[in-house]
Amino acid sequence: MAQIRAGLVGVTGYTGMELVRLLENHPHINLVAVTSRSDAGKKVHDIYPFMQGFATGELEITVPDAPSLAKQCDVVFLAVPHGVAMTMAAAFRKEGVAIIDLSADFRLRDVAVFETWYKAEHAEPALLKEAVYGLPELYADQIAKAQLIANPGCYPTTSILSLAPALRNGFIHTAGIVIDAKSGTTGAGRKAAVGSLYCEVADTFKAYNLTTHRHTPEIEQELSLVAGKDITLSFNAHLLPVNRGILATIYTQLKDGVSFDTVYEAYTDAYEPHPFVRVLPKSALPELRNVRGTMFCDIGLVHDPRTGRLILVAAIDNMCRGASGQAIANANLMHNLPIETGLMLAPMVP
Amino acid sequence: MAQIRAGLVGVTGYTGMELVRLLENHPHINLVAVTSRSDAGKKVHDIYPFMQGFATGELEITVPDAPSLAKQCDVVFLAVPHGVAMTMAAAFRKEGVAIIDLSADFRLRDVAVFETWYKAEHAEPALLKEAVYGLPELYADQIAKAQLIANPGCYPTTSILSLAPALRNGFIHTAGIVIDAKSGTTGAGRKAAVGSLYCEVADTFKAYNLTTHRHTPEIEQELSLVAGKDITLSFNAHLLPVNRGILATIYTQLKDGVSFDTVYEAYTDAYEPHPFVRVLPKSALPELRNVRGTMFCDIGLVHDPRTGRLILVAAIDNMCRGASGQAIANANLMHNLPIETGLMLAPMVP
Amino acid sequence: MAQIRAGLVGVTGYTGMELVRLLENHPHINLVAVTSRSDAGKKVHDIYPFMQGFATGELEITVPDAPSLAKQCDVVFLAVPHGVAMTMAAAFRKEGVAIIDLSADFRLRDVAVFETWYKAEHAEPALLKEAVYGLPELYADQIAKAQLIANPGCYPTTSILSLAPALRNGFIHTAGIVIDAKSGTTGAGRKAAVGSLYCEVADTFKAYNLTTHRHTPEIEQELSLVAGKDITLSFNAHLLPVNRGILATIYTQLKDGVSFDTVYEAYTDAYEPHPFVRVLPKSALPELRNVRGTMFCDIGLVHDPRTGRLILVAAIDNMCRGASGQAIANANLMHNLPIETGLMLAPMVP
Amino acid sequence: MAQIRAGLVGVTGYTGMELVRLLENHPHINLVAVTSRSDAGKKVHDIYPFMQGFATGELEITVPDAPSLAKQCDVVFLAVPHGVAMTMAAAFRKEGVAIIDLSADFRLRDVAVFETWYKAEHAEPALLKEAVYGLPELYADQIAKAQLIANPGCYPTTSILSLAPALRNGFIHTAGIVIDAKSGTTGAGRKAAVGSLYCEVADTFKAYNLTTHRHTPEIEQELSLVAGKDITLSFNAHLLPVNRGILATIYTQLKDGVSFDTVYEAYTDAYEPHPFVRVLPKSALPELRNVRGTMFCDIGLVHDPRTGRLILVAAIDNMCRGASGQAIANANLMHNLPIETGLMLAPMVP
Repeated sequence: MAQIRAGLVGVTGYTGMELVRLLENHPHINLVAVTSRSDAGKKVHDIYPFMQGFATGELEITVPDAPSLAKQCDVVFLAVPHGVAMTMAAAFRKEGVAIIDLSADFRLRDVAVFETWYKAEHAEPALLKEAVYGLPELYADQIAKAQLIANPGCYPTTSILSLAPALRNGFIHTAGIVIDAKSGTTGAGRKAAVGSLYCEVADTFKAYNLTTHRHTPEIEQELSLVAGKDITLSFNAHLLPVNRGILATIYTQLKDGVSFDTVYEAYTDAYEPHPFVRVLPKSALPELRNVRGTMFCDIGLVHDPRTGRLILVAAIDNMCRGASGQAIANANLMHNLPIETGLMLAPMVP
Repeated sequence: MAQIRAGLVGVTGYTGMELVRLLENHPHINLVAVTSRSDAGKKVHDIYPFMQGFATGELEITVPDAPSLAKQCDVVFLAVPHGVAMTMAAAFRKEGVAIIDLSADFRLRDVAVFETWYKAEHAEPALLKEAVYGLPELYADQIAKAQLIANPGCYPTTSILSLAPALRNGFIHTAGIVIDAKSGTTGAGRKAAVGSLYCEVADTFKAYNLTTHRHTPEIEQELSLVAGKDITLSFNAHLLPVNRGILATIYTQLKDGVSFDTVYEAYTDAYEPHPFVRVLPKSALPELRNVRGTMFCDIGLVHDPRTGRLILVAAIDNMCRGASGQAIANANLMHNLPIETGLMLAPMVP
Repeated sequence: MAQIRAGLVGVTGYTGMELVRLLENHPHINLVAVTSRSDAGKKVHDIYPFMQGFATGELEITVPDAPSLAKQCDVVFLAVPHGVAMTMAAAFRKEGVAIIDLSADFRLRDVAVFETWYKAEHAEPALLKEAVYGLPELYADQIAKAQLIANPGCYPTTSILSLAPALRNGFIHTAGIVIDAKSGTTGAGRKAAVGSLYCEVADTFKAYNLTTHRHTPEIEQELSLVAGKDITLSFNAHLLPVNRGILATIYTQLKDGVSFDTVYEAYTDAYEPHPFVRVLPKSALPELRNVRGTMFCDIGLVHDPRTGRLILVAAIDNMCRGASGQAIANANLMHNLPIETGLMLAPMVP
Repeated sequence: MAQIRAGLVGVTGYTGMELVRLLENHPHINLVAVTSRSDAGKKVHDIYPFMQGFATGELEITVPDAPSLAKQCDVVFLAVPHGVAMTMAAAFRKEGVAIIDLSADFRLRDVAVFETWYKAEHAEPALLKEAVYGLPELYADQIAKAQLIANPGCYPTTSILSLAPALRNGFIHTAGIVIDAKSGTTGAGRKAAVGSLYCEVADTFKAYNLTTHRHTPEIEQELSLVAGKDITLSFNAHLLPVNRGILATIYTQLKDGVSFDTVYEAYTDAYEPHPFVRVLPKSALPELRNVRGTMFCDIGLVHDPRTGRLILVAAIDNMCRGASGQAIANANLMHNLPIETGLMLAPMVP
């Protein structure tokens, strides 16, 4: 088959870095153009010495330019900050290029919700209708036909995959759900900031943005659709002294009369067709390292008869499954490739 | 004043190590005897080279022997595993020595609850009546008169201090409380075990013992007493790749009509007399490093108007406040010393 | 082409774990048998949950048995402790199976040197003659024809690759060489030991086995052969709080009249045919993360005109290049596959 | 005795943070003024929440102003970047205040050497004559009488203390010395820089500034004075994924006829009067954690009969012994306090 030509706008951040790694290993998508205003003129291996010896390492970084990229690429990944992405996406769409946007700009279907949580006007509200939420386990068919993918956030990926089967089947109460999520520090991005320094993150741990994290409306939007009713939940984030990974512990209340066996079976059934979701054996719980560098979402289920709670524990790699790898899975679907193409690398432990 | 002579049974674990550090810095309690079956005959600095140059480093380690220690010591700290501690405590009490037991053996007031959760018979149920639960903010008066202290667990210390004011004042619903706790790896102890190896803990994160952690009944026991009604809650633990510290994020539901300002004021009032509990400013959240090596319990309060939740975030050092430092605070109270004696060291950050 | 069938004796250690990861990604070598006395009867994914969803994860672990493995396998990897490996290797060789031994048992050509440094008798001295030292950049031709590979140690791999071009060309004095090496903690193995606990390794750093490390004679043996004269050097090891990787800083004295440009050119020439050695640009220095999970040996060269020193800095992944990956590279050569088959995975950073 | 009033210029960096910690614990030096242009108007505990509950936490941060500080303080610590410090020191000296400068500005006795290595003109060369190099083990008498202390660099403190006895006694060759030093990340300071981000430092390791580190001339200057002859050596630095600490492995060549016992005895004799230098038992080696948060310089000595090398391994805390604690030790000496006043805190392990 013909190789798919991909462009990457924003190579210098962590999600850009991860796209470079994953596309180097991809048998059918070739990275042919990478951009960065600050590093234009250099080769990829100049800024990423770990790519010396690989084809992608030899690529020259250019200034982002929609018409020029449009000529070279079948699909373009946008790994730029929210706000910037929406304008770029519009420029690329005008040139007819398919876009996979890793920012938050097209994830919220209701522009008012976007503007409330992101405290900024949306410059391209018309494009929102065109955008497909790129969570393959929920929207594979629409993704396959889309030209503009809103690649999900890392916390929402974890949360939605964990809660969807329980909500879809009406096993749990929709009120009172708590998501206690813990993320590795790549989640804070690669910008120079005192709060992200090694000596401010190592050997410590903290909560942040409690009750106000911007991924909250994205989670509520998708789970409300799954449940068929409006869901308001408590989502809260913490910063882990690890590079990669999100682990979320999710507290729900099982409805009377629903047995744990029924729930467990519904989960294994729901995810049996989906290679990237691993429902763990009943006694097992996820660990970040088991999903590091991979597309897996590992889900463990625990029932507490004392409190009637169903506790879901889920782990993903925020960089791979929660961003760049998921973007490539979406690209696979858009080009009729098996979703796992180039993405089934055995994880490195430890 | 006369110096208080202290003994330490079990110097080779992490809580023993921490007692050595803290007592070296204590102006009125002298460590005069330390024991360890495996290292008897060595000096403390032979097994702890960081103690070279300190008086405690020169102490010779002996085999534990109650009659001999009873002659040398005014108070003995037991830093041995549960099960072992109860028998030792009985031997020491027979000699008339005051005991501060860092194990779980005397924390649960109801022997049946102990036997259910610890799956073992209690060898000294009669001593349970004599034991005082050594949480100074709740039981300072009883501690001052006690001869047998059940030093609280690390998770219970965090959880009880965080929830007590809200429950005492009836601000929150007693049903549905969730404690999502994260602990540093010293909590796993110093025994050689594959699961505690550096390469099994570093750069990863996981939940463990969900719904079955043995600190659960201890938390429920004390909070039920505070609330004046039986509380059943969901307590769940996670393992952090850090040496020290516990951070707990606690989810509660505020009762209708209770304002956040009222709650916040009740917390600052409740802990104003207690130097070791720091209620943080309204916009602030605890971090492990702020309490590392100290006796502080930092508590942050967050109100979520969307969900009606009151979220409490609390951090302690599991080794100091959660074990050895709290034991010394209890020893201070037992000997009519100000509680902060030898324990107000400024924390080391980073 | 026909798939090559591989066996793995000793799946439960870190090198076994790494072989599982790498062979899962290998297009032409299939892992068909894995053994472990302690875990026989389980599946691989029972002990390595990260392998759930992969073919290798479904393999059943068996008890090691040479005749049985001989029937199933074209090549067997021995990932067992030194001393044990030599006897097993003999048993397998009697069955006619090709062996790649990751232990130290066949690395030292002189049995007396082995017995001096390892303080044990060699049970199979006759096999030493048959063994080929499995460093592909030096011995590719012999490896291709070998039936018993002595897979090099991790420190020797780093040290020999770094020093070989300078010594082969006579650029540096052979006396006075210092190798200051720093290793990740997987190098200590996966056995339960207090010294390898997270809380004993994290946030600290130390030297160990100074002047007596058993990799010393292996380095001296190979470099003496390269230089054509006996070399005695100072090799010293340190333990890093990271999972993987070795970085060695090597101090040599440049001979009078040898220009740095000449040296640099000799290095780039020497390693131009070898895809796994990356000689870095003149101003660049290796970092562990750039080689993590890969077969690369990154080498940086620095000249100090003030002292006349040529400093070599080299980094490898001790688990992949320094053990299991190198074993697979040897298997590739033994089966006439390109050396990089299955081993050119782009590294994961960060 | 009267309390000594201290000022701190530059509270927001890591050395400022460490001075705050250490002075809070000091019985005779009170921190009465702290400055920072960016945080003026805030209280110390606003920027350092770990200082809530301590007297120093209540101090209000002001803009640095020499005349105003001169009125309030007996001694002023300068924790500002080199280049800035020299001008400030001059302003303070004009007001007659004693200064302890933690920057490099007054460490090099020869202004030409300063200008070569720091690539900048020295604005206050006249003050160089007044400055005393603040290494107490070498210059206690001069420090006691000084008004301007050039507080030593962290690497020089480690290197000079390790090598001084061997060089003073002529035990080792002065040529060919190699210092392979590894530092924690606080050494890179608290400025926002991509290279110091958690995700760029954690789980990796690298060398930096090989052959060109600015601490080299400082080490050579002091060791040349000790040896009575000019010394040129190879000093090289590495970045460790830990917060604090320097460990240096130092390679020297023992002169013919000098026995290791003689050397070892000279070290224990030399440091017997100095409480902050711990010469370890013959079989022991330093570890970073043993000195963390302390003033100790732990020195281990190893003799390699195979190569004739004397290897010195030394560890300090770069923040405490290598900067702020040493500054306080100097302040103690300047005010006729025992050097260990306020500085003999038992270390926290782990």
